[in-house]
Amino acid sequence: MIELPEPKADVLAKRDIIVAGLRHLLPDDAVIADPLRLKPYETDALTAYRQAPMVVVLPGTTEEVASVLAFCHQHGVRVIPRGAGTSLAGGALPLSDSVVIGMMRMNRIVEINYEDRYAVVQAGVTNIAITQAVQGAGFFYAPDPSSQLACMIGGNVNMNSGGAHCLKYGVTANNLLGLRAVTINGDIIEIGGNYPDAAGYDWLGLLTGSEGQLVIVTEVTVRILHSPEGARAMLAAFASNEVAGQCVDAIISSGIIPVALEFMDRPAIHAAEAFAKAGYPLNAEALLIIEVEGALQEQDHLLGMIEQICQRFDPVSLRVSASMEESVAIWKGRKGAFGAIGRISPDYLCMDGTIPTSQLPYTLQRIREMSESYGLGVANIFHAGDGNLHPLILYDANDPESVRKAEALGADILCLCVEVGGCLTGEHGVGVEKRDLMPVQFNEIELTQQRMVKSVFDPDWLLNPAKVFPLLPAMKPGAKAVEAA
Amino acid sequence: MIELPEPKADVLAKRDIIVAGLRHLLPDDAVIADPLRLKPYETDALTAYRQAPMVVVLPGTTEEVASVLAFCHQHGVRVIPRGAGTSLAGGALPLSDSVVIGMMRMNRIVEINYEDRYAVVQAGVTNIAITQAVQGAGFFYAPDPSSQLACMIGGNVNMNSGGAHCLKYGVTANNLLGLRAVTINGDIIEIGGNYPDAAGYDWLGLLTGSEGQLVIVTEVTVRILHSPEGARAMLAAFASNEVAGQCVDAIISSGIIPVALEFMDRPAIHAAEAFAKAGYPLNAEALLIIEVEGALQEQDHLLGMIEQICQRFDPVSLRVSASMEESVAIWKGRKGAFGAIGRISPDYLCMDGTIPTSQLPYTLQRIREMSESYGLGVANIFHAGDGNLHPLILYDANDPESVRKAEALGADILCLCVEVGGCLTGEHGVGVEKRDLMPVQFNEIELTQQRMVKSVFDPDWLLNPAKVFPLLPAMKPGAKAVEAA
Repeated sequence: MIELPEPKADVLAKRDIIVAGLRHLLPDDAVIADPLRLKPYETDALTAYRQAPMVVVLPGTTEEVASVLAFCHQHGVRVIPRGAGTSLAGGALPLSDSVVIGMMRMNRIVEINYEDRYAVVQAGVTNIAITQAVQGAGFFYAPDPSSQLACMIGGNVNMNSGGAHCLKYGVTANNLLGLRAVTINGDIIEIGGNYPDAAGYDWLGLLTGSEGQLVIVTEVTVRILHSPEGARAMLAAFASNEVAGQCVDAIISSGIIPVALEFMDRPAIHAAEAFAKAGYPLNAEALLIIEVEGALQEQDHLLGMIEQICQRFDPVSLRVSASMEESVAIWKGRKGAFGAIGRISPDYLCMDGTIPTSQLPYTLQRIREMSESYGLGVANIFHAGDGNLHPLILYDANDPESVRKAEALGADILCLCVEVGGCLTGEHGVGVEKRDLMPVQFNEIELTQQRMVKSVFDPDWLLNPAKVFPLLPAMKPGAKAVEAA
Repeated sequence: MIELPEPKADVLAKRDIIVAGLRHLLPDDAVIADPLRLKPYETDALTAYRQAPMVVVLPGTTEEVASVLAFCHQHGVRVIPRGAGTSLAGGALPLSDSVVIGMMRMNRIVEINYEDRYAVVQAGVTNIAITQAVQGAGFFYAPDPSSQLACMIGGNVNMNSGGAHCLKYGVTANNLLGLRAVTINGDIIEIGGNYPDAAGYDWLGLLTGSEGQLVIVTEVTVRILHSPEGARAMLAAFASNEVAGQCVDAIISSGIIPVALEFMDRPAIHAAEAFAKAGYPLNAEALLIIEVEGALQEQDHLLGMIEQICQRFDPVSLRVSASMEESVAIWKGRKGAFGAIGRISPDYLCMDGTIPTSQLPYTLQRIREMSESYGLGVANIFHAGDGNLHPLILYDANDPESVRKAEALGADILCLCVEVGGCLTGEHGVGVEKRDLMPVQFNEIELTQQRMVKSVFDPDWLLNPAKVFPLLPAMKPGAKAVEAA
């Protein structure tokens, strides 16, 4: 259950004036107010929560975004930015009195510069489209969220998204060079550019991961990298989660940085194998997929070292791929794993916490104990190399008791992450999902400072206001509880 | 010439009360008020500007820093943090009504964790001391400012310092995991920790490089890395700056990331050779030092590829070191180059701008033209791989006309960096030196936003207030011009 703030009565009362005003600013087909056509915007990938917005706009330029924001600012209207709606934390969940700004029409690649290795793209360009645009010249854009076919770079910036290959290349923040963005009063600002450091405070750092609460991002300059000569994966399976966790820690603390190091536990292995027929060992309790890249020689060298480390942990099975094709087969099960879990449980809640890798064995054991005590299954499929857990809590959305338990178990798991020296989120962001857990990580002074910085950019709290922080007291009276579906 | 703000008359009037109050909070030898003993704190490495503070304190714990800040806050006293005083941008320049907080007593290494690869150190630990503490176990701390023997990690965080090896490993911001810090009202806050991402806004990013204007950093958690198996340097000399610049661009845009790629022009080569006898080719106009690291095989592979690229630019001389010893000889001249320049010119001003590497040839040519038109020599010694220029302007501090010209040429060079798509600073920060150039890079909206965020942390502008931004109008009346010495 989450609470959404009390709608502003004055805004709801002048709904027609607001819609007419927006129609005046944008092309006719860029304003959606018909309730039926608002349906697709009710939810994002945190599908448990739904709320229709007042109106949706689809601007095509930064200037249109600026005029919409100036208008909303003038009328005190709340604004929710939305990319592809793939947020797993409810980052794009609308409010009933809000204007949703959908970025999907801003999908143009503005500039590609191979010499200085950057690309300038509009916020509505999909993550994969950047790599597709540059791969012919031997380049790629590194961060690769699971949703990369759909998710948009503007959303990646807002949530500081990660992905399997971020172990080597870092998350979105590490691959950004500049932003064009609009403030709530309609000013267009440009930040960063094609150089590594910047004078003044680190605005690029501050805005990245700010979940659409400080500015609306309209254009992004990303670093593009030379594609490696090749990549190869191996698969190592173990007799327990704990031993696999120890092996991850041994690989990482040896100083080798594979390009990806993924973990799947027994429920995930079985679900994935039934779905993808990847040849995973069904007698294993836990499985690691480890990928290295570089020249052929380097691949051999690294895989050899990793194999030696794995052998120390008595693997149930060990398979080093000899070719790109074998690698693809090894990855096939992992890539379909989330979908496969959907076949063994009516619903699942995907958590996202981060822990020091040395704490992996202990944390996995505690999650197993919590899962037993709640009586709910948990499947673990995650980016083990950087300690980014994704416990999938299996539950039944039609059983209110099961929903309640799943939410409580999820909160307990995230508190555990903080307890062992980690963090509430790895790559999905806080959104509405983890909003009320922020005091577990931050004290009141720290939360107040963060809220005050939001107020600098957005004094009236119009930009995506019900996310990231526990609801402000001023938003509480009349706040509406939304039960998970 | 720079302007320092009008001293606060009320603060100067109660100097004795303030000193007595500070003595009450700290051990006796931790408060320095004797004018003679204040002398060493008058300036930092931007020695042109001098100003004695009112008093210096040397706290030994975070709690002592907190009590000093709460006291200064209560009395409206300005506070200047100081590490080793190695700032080249005047970041530690005192104000006459200020308390300088010297961090040199907070020099304890608190924790080293090899398993999770981090170290927790107090702000007054020198940069080199971190590597020294962990190198026995095969680890190192990556950022390596030229001043690394002296400069302190707290200052590195405040200025987001770089160094020759940041081409591969990133600057301070990329090697930090967490901070302990004190706000102006004496609250102790903890940020980040041993995990890559964080919930909420990116406070670690915001505070890194904030030049002591938002909080006083007292403890730092840094990432430590496994030392590479080995490293080897090569030297390539060319017939002109422009050709050497083209070669840098060709290496970087080939996708090879050497661990360092340094540039020296003719004046620098001659000064360094006379000083260090490193065997540099005196018939060359420009020289590159390129270092790679890794296993022996990998070194050979990378040096071979780089050699091929260099050959395309008709090198005057090309020397690949065959051993660690030869590498040390190649580096010897570069490491002593700044000192060596001191032997050919009475004084020099070290600038610090960053540009896209594709703009190197053009920018070097424009700097040469500017140098001729001003009639002042310029030596270029810089981190070419990431486009971080360090033009050294040669001038005579005893000749006011020469001083004026040097400052004007410096400003022109930094404006040129912004003009070609770069930035006012690469690794030295803004400080007082580039404060008045900030409007070249940022418009008024952007500067106002940054100032408002400072006001969130420090509403009365007590923390290092005369740096980073052009002086506020409120600070202007009675502002005192300080001529460069």
